[in-house]
Amino acid sequence: MQIPWTKPDFWGNEIKYVTDALESSWISGGTYLDKLENDFKKVLDKKHVLAVSNGTTAIHLAYLGLGLKPNDEVVVPGFSFLAASNIALHMGLKPVFAEVDPDTWCLSPKHLPKYISSKTKAIIPIHTYGNVCNMNKIMRIAKEKKIAVIEDCAESLFSKYKGNYCGSFGNISTFSFQATKTITTGEGGLVATDSEDLNKKMMLYRSHGMDRSKSFYWHEVPGHNFRLTNFQAAMGVAQFEKINVILSERKRVYEEYKKHLTGVDGIVLQKIEKDVDPVIWALALKLHSKNFPQGRDKVIEQLREKGIETRPGFFASSLLKIYKKHSLPICENISRHVLSLPTFPSLKNAEISFVCNELLQLRK
Amino acid sequence: MQIPWTKPDFWGNEIKYVTDALESSWISGGTYLDKLENDFKKVLDKKHVLAVSNGTTAIHLAYLGLGLKPNDEVVVPGFSFLAASNIALHMGLKPVFAEVDPDTWCLSPKHLPKYISSKTKAIIPIHTYGNVCNMNKIMRIAKEKKIAVIEDCAESLFSKYKGNYCGSFGNISTFSFQATKTITTGEGGLVATDSEDLNKKMMLYRSHGMDRSKSFYWHEVPGHNFRLTNFQAAMGVAQFEKINVILSERKRVYEEYKKHLTGVDGIVLQKIEKDVDPVIWALALKLHSKNFPQGRDKVIEQLREKGIETRPGFFASSLLKIYKKHSLPICENISRHVLSLPTFPSLKNAEISFVCNELLQLRK
Repeated sequence: MQIPWTKPDFWGNEIKYVTDALESSWISGGTYLDKLENDFKKVLDKKHVLAVSNGTTAIHLAYLGLGLKPNDEVVVPGFSFLAASNIALHMGLKPVFAEVDPDTWCLSPKHLPKYISSKTKAIIPIHTYGNVCNMNKIMRIAKEKKIAVIEDCAESLFSKYKGNYCGSFGNISTFSFQATKTITTGEGGLVATDSEDLNKKMMLYRSHGMDRSKSFYWHEVPGHNFRLTNFQAAMGVAQFEKINVILSERKRVYEEYKKHLTGVDGIVLQKIEKDVDPVIWALALKLHSKNFPQGRDKVIEQLREKGIETRPGFFASSLLKIYKKHSLPICENISRHVLSLPTFPSLKNAEISFVCNELLQLRK
Repeated sequence: MQIPWTKPDFWGNEIKYVTDALESSWISGGTYLDKLENDFKKVLDKKHVLAVSNGTTAIHLAYLGLGLKPNDEVVVPGFSFLAASNIALHMGLKPVFAEVDPDTWCLSPKHLPKYISSKTKAIIPIHTYGNVCNMNKIMRIAKEKKIAVIEDCAESLFSKYKGNYCGSFGNISTFSFQATKTITTGEGGLVATDSEDLNKKMMLYRSHGMDRSKSFYWHEVPGHNFRLTNFQAAMGVAQFEKINVILSERKRVYEEYKKHLTGVDGIVLQKIEKDVDPVIWALALKLHSKNFPQGRDKVIEQLREKGIETRPGFFASSLLKIYKKHSLPICENISRHVLSLPTFPSLKNAEISFVCNELLQLRK
């Protein structure tokens, strides 16, 4: 593939720090893990941050920290990467799928109240593609109903809403360092919270329910193993040192795409509200059927023939057999028409031009 | 600490291969992962091997592969590292704790039948400290009752029973590459099976339930994320190349301990049956109260003062608040008296002498 959809980029000390972590023989726990957690504690202005094995185990840990029990309900957007609802099923929770905003593709505060019942224990706004949900309205609803909010920031690290980083609004926020993400540790993630109680519980569940400072092999809770290794953390620490470069390159890529694609007939970019300063994980747009009568999936094939890798939007939950099929017209519409284009910091402006030109040539 | 309980040892190409994996930019999936899986497929003589994020997620994946459902029962030994029962609770399964053999400390085939009911869906023999359970008898009982067997080989990689590697007997076997283990990837593990059907299901659950060869973002099952990274696998591949050295050093350590401690008053080593050729993960022994009236936990303290790190035995399930307390006298007896001594391949004979002498000086 001439232009891949994504590519992990290295910025300096990744290999050096990983080697250092290996040579220290602290390959499991260790100082890079501490540093990674502290770096994020500072920048996210959170009291507690736990490094974990990936963004999905971060969500699992958040549910365990909140003590969610079978038949509890969690509200998740019907258009998103569905880790939060998959993990809900693992725990016997009932995921209740909510409509998203037709323009921002994020959990819609307008629709949200109708998905809340007396069984609702958590709302999970997912900041899709780097956008941020309307957190003011969502938090207002959640506070009124006394429901916990878990912000799934897997796709939106360092995106801002009203000047604050996403992840700073909910009771718990989760992040991903998977290979395609703004900062990567291969696989990895974080959970962040201001609550000492939640943090203590999550720390226990992260490592077998054992508090080694007390007694070896004493399981206080039936813990899992969601630990990140020290040498993966070393990679994260190296990337974090270069975060300004990474963010400015991601912003350049986004601005460049906008230059080519804003206001173009047949294409609608994901709407970013003025309150949001996004770090775009994946440039995503909707194709109008009128202008692309061959359909989104055919466009993906046509671009592949030109050496350009793209991805379809997520399946709406209501289109998947594993979830109950109450219809979600907005989610389904987005799901069928969204295309996401190559997005990574080292993507060159000339490549972006090429991608956009090839896409536009497929228009009727 | 002068002599730690464990220390990860490197044997040659670990840093080189990890660096190579990082430079390839295949930090998530990649060729080292393929190689690690293939290496183990060959040596374990298993049709299917999946690399996973750790030994606990390996067990979780085995349960998911078997399609275990809430209220299904799984039989696990009451003396062991309790990952298998902790994960059972996560899935709403009922762990039924079985007595172990008083000498080998492994799941006792003699006691096993009384823990089996019409709800039993899996038996999980755990090969504790590198020993191997009596797999002939356990498999005979399981086959008669048509119950699946998951061998938990987290502590017993390359231990043999009747000439075959442990993990070759059950329907699924699970392994760990955690930092203290015979082969390490920092955190990591494997699941192995001969069943194509089980493998297919586990492969789906390992990565979000998505089969990317079919359709992007289509969740066939509510998968989790239990993936291992390619650069962690690179470390495993490097260690696997030196497996003969690693095994012979582990065997030397074990033989050396036996020289000092076999037949010594007040000390009983874990019994290894003649059918078993063990790769000892942790040298473990029982202290007689008569000879060590100060008690095991005091002995741990006394050795710590001499610069020697040791560990107590696992808590018997019946001693933990999170599990129901039907009494398991054999497990509880072992739990209270077992001590495990420093065990790692680079531990020197002189250090072993020192550890044993210090221990024996604490005897009455």
